[in-house]
Amino acid sequence: MDEQEKQQIIKSCTRFLRYHYPQTPHQVLSTLAETTDAELEADHYGQGKLISSFENEIADMLGKEAAVFMPSGTMCQQIALRIWSERNRLPRVAFHPTCHLEIHEQFGYQRLHHLESVLVGTTDRMFILDDLKKVSEPISALLIELPQREIGGQLPTWDELNAMIEWAREKGIATHMDGARLWECQPFYNRSYAEIASLFDSVYVSFYKILNGIAGAILAGPADFIAEARVWQRRHGGNLVHLYPYVLSAKQGMATHLERMGEYHEKAKSVASVLSEFSRISVVPNPPQTNMMHVFLQGDPERLIEASLDVARETKTLLFSGLTPTLLLGYSKFELSVGDATLDLSNEEIRELFERIFDVS
Amino acid sequence: MDEQEKQQIIKSCTRFLRYHYPQTPHQVLSTLAETTDAELEADHYGQGKLISSFENEIADMLGKEAAVFMPSGTMCQQIALRIWSERNRLPRVAFHPTCHLEIHEQFGYQRLHHLESVLVGTTDRMFILDDLKKVSEPISALLIELPQREIGGQLPTWDELNAMIEWAREKGIATHMDGARLWECQPFYNRSYAEIASLFDSVYVSFYKILNGIAGAILAGPADFIAEARVWQRRHGGNLVHLYPYVLSAKQGMATHLERMGEYHEKAKSVASVLSEFSRISVVPNPPQTNMMHVFLQGDPERLIEASLDVARETKTLLFSGLTPTLLLGYSKFELSVGDATLDLSNEEIRELFERIFDVS
Repeated sequence: MDEQEKQQIIKSCTRFLRYHYPQTPHQVLSTLAETTDAELEADHYGQGKLISSFENEIADMLGKEAAVFMPSGTMCQQIALRIWSERNRLPRVAFHPTCHLEIHEQFGYQRLHHLESVLVGTTDRMFILDDLKKVSEPISALLIELPQREIGGQLPTWDELNAMIEWAREKGIATHMDGARLWECQPFYNRSYAEIASLFDSVYVSFYKILNGIAGAILAGPADFIAEARVWQRRHGGNLVHLYPYVLSAKQGMATHLERMGEYHEKAKSVASVLSEFSRISVVPNPPQTNMMHVFLQGDPERLIEASLDVARETKTLLFSGLTPTLLLGYSKFELSVGDATLDLSNEEIRELFERIFDVS
Repeated sequence: MDEQEKQQIIKSCTRFLRYHYPQTPHQVLSTLAETTDAELEADHYGQGKLISSFENEIADMLGKEAAVFMPSGTMCQQIALRIWSERNRLPRVAFHPTCHLEIHEQFGYQRLHHLESVLVGTTDRMFILDDLKKVSEPISALLIELPQREIGGQLPTWDELNAMIEWAREKGIATHMDGARLWECQPFYNRSYAEIASLFDSVYVSFYKILNGIAGAILAGPADFIAEARVWQRRHGGNLVHLYPYVLSAKQGMATHLERMGEYHEKAKSVASVLSEFSRISVVPNPPQTNMMHVFLQGDPERLIEASLDVARETKTLLFSGLTPTLLLGYSKFELSVGDATLDLSNEEIRELFERIFDVS
């Protein structure tokens, strides 16, 4: 099967195991146009009611003094770590080996901000207090990602999290939350976003991913910290003349999806339970702690993908269209985030479709 | 007059001396939704037909091998200068004292990229070859802004420009064009964009301003340079999951406004001629070299603004709503960029409205 045929099959699908239903720019822009007040004025270089009121809303929700909307989380987090490092007079920060800054940002934190990193723990699990105690040099800031995306959305328990925060506070180390998927761990902790965020000096949250916005992020924290972050945002080239398409879609995403996080999490657990019945499937973590999990499949990845696409062609239902290699011999995996599209597939149907795939691959 | 009253008057206006007619997000998004092909797929982290084909189109127009779309010019230009500096093994670059990097970017080029600057010439005019000859230390790159925005859109002559480029080339200094308003100097040089751009190793162009896009910029240059720029874009946090609202509006802006540059320039010259009849007005440069000029007004700025807003309230036509101080005693100024709204005001009407303002202030 060539790439073009593969893309045609994917495009023809109407139901999806993963995430939300895909939308074209035309659909997204039409909805935004329809739902935007005709009188609403554009933001202007970060100023104006639209963007300020949204920043305030998120700051309140996170229990922080202030917040700033930026084009990307990459920008938010490098800036946060730079500020905390300067305040603590030491350009060294600590995070997980699979942290976004370490594996997805082309080492911007080094090349732009001249920060050094300490990698805490191992790539297969969340770090805990014992891992932090092994850090043998001073650091200015500790970044904790909730949930840890690259390992299937794992979370520390509330007590484990508090123990780490206490360790950092005692040492005068600033704590920053990578909350790209903070929305998705609310059901696990069963605490308000403000209570979770209260453990951290600064918090970054994202508006695409589960919230389905076009793009965009917010950094929240103390008022003087956010004022400083705005200066860095300009330096990064992120203080755009207009950010309103992103802000409007972020607001819409919050209004549509935030209340469904519990539902997504419940569905994730029941889907994981169904998938675990297959001897050739392993789910990580099991049970899922958020709406996300990694699904490990035993077998030849090319044949599995081919089988999944054959099923997709016939049923217009897409389970997965790509698999990434793993260290585990004979296993490859895909990331499964439960969203609106997942909710519309019954667990019985999911079971049957995987049976068909394994029958022929 | 308080700020709220002022804003109400501005909002009630239907005709404008400056620029294009203002549009609300609702209007912009509605137009984008209507004109976007229902089948068009979103860009994804800088990939996809929409963004790639637009990048190629602009690269071709500028006669460059490759181009990359970024959220902002700030990002494009710091990145360009960083790359040229690394290639020339010296973190030092030269530009005009009113360069965007020097006065509008919170010294990102220093704080993020650790570049040193050499300021060439003086703040009141474009620099020329004689100014460059006074640079007494080695530099890696020379940035030339065409036109120089902060001094009313002044341009070097074609011969002056070529002489400077030749000086740089002989010394192995990379040349970068700040073409935020490149579109606007085409009538002055009466040469193709590719011919103007051919003088430079890299070129940045912008899609808001006269093109009226939502935001967004392109950096164009050699293929290996652009490949490197994409890595820096990710480091800056500018490689967004979706940039399509900006790309779509940039395409629309090109289609709508590019062919009108000659008309804007002609109108700018005739408006400058009308304004110059007033003893209390000085236009810089006169005649305008692009569609832009600075209009210096003699008199008390508060009274002039009040008079302009009184005229606006009565006629629904806004001439200016703010004035910035100048070094010239008794004079303040506003920037006048000629756009679609300007074209719809007759010069006779412009003369009459300024007469009314000067009558009462």
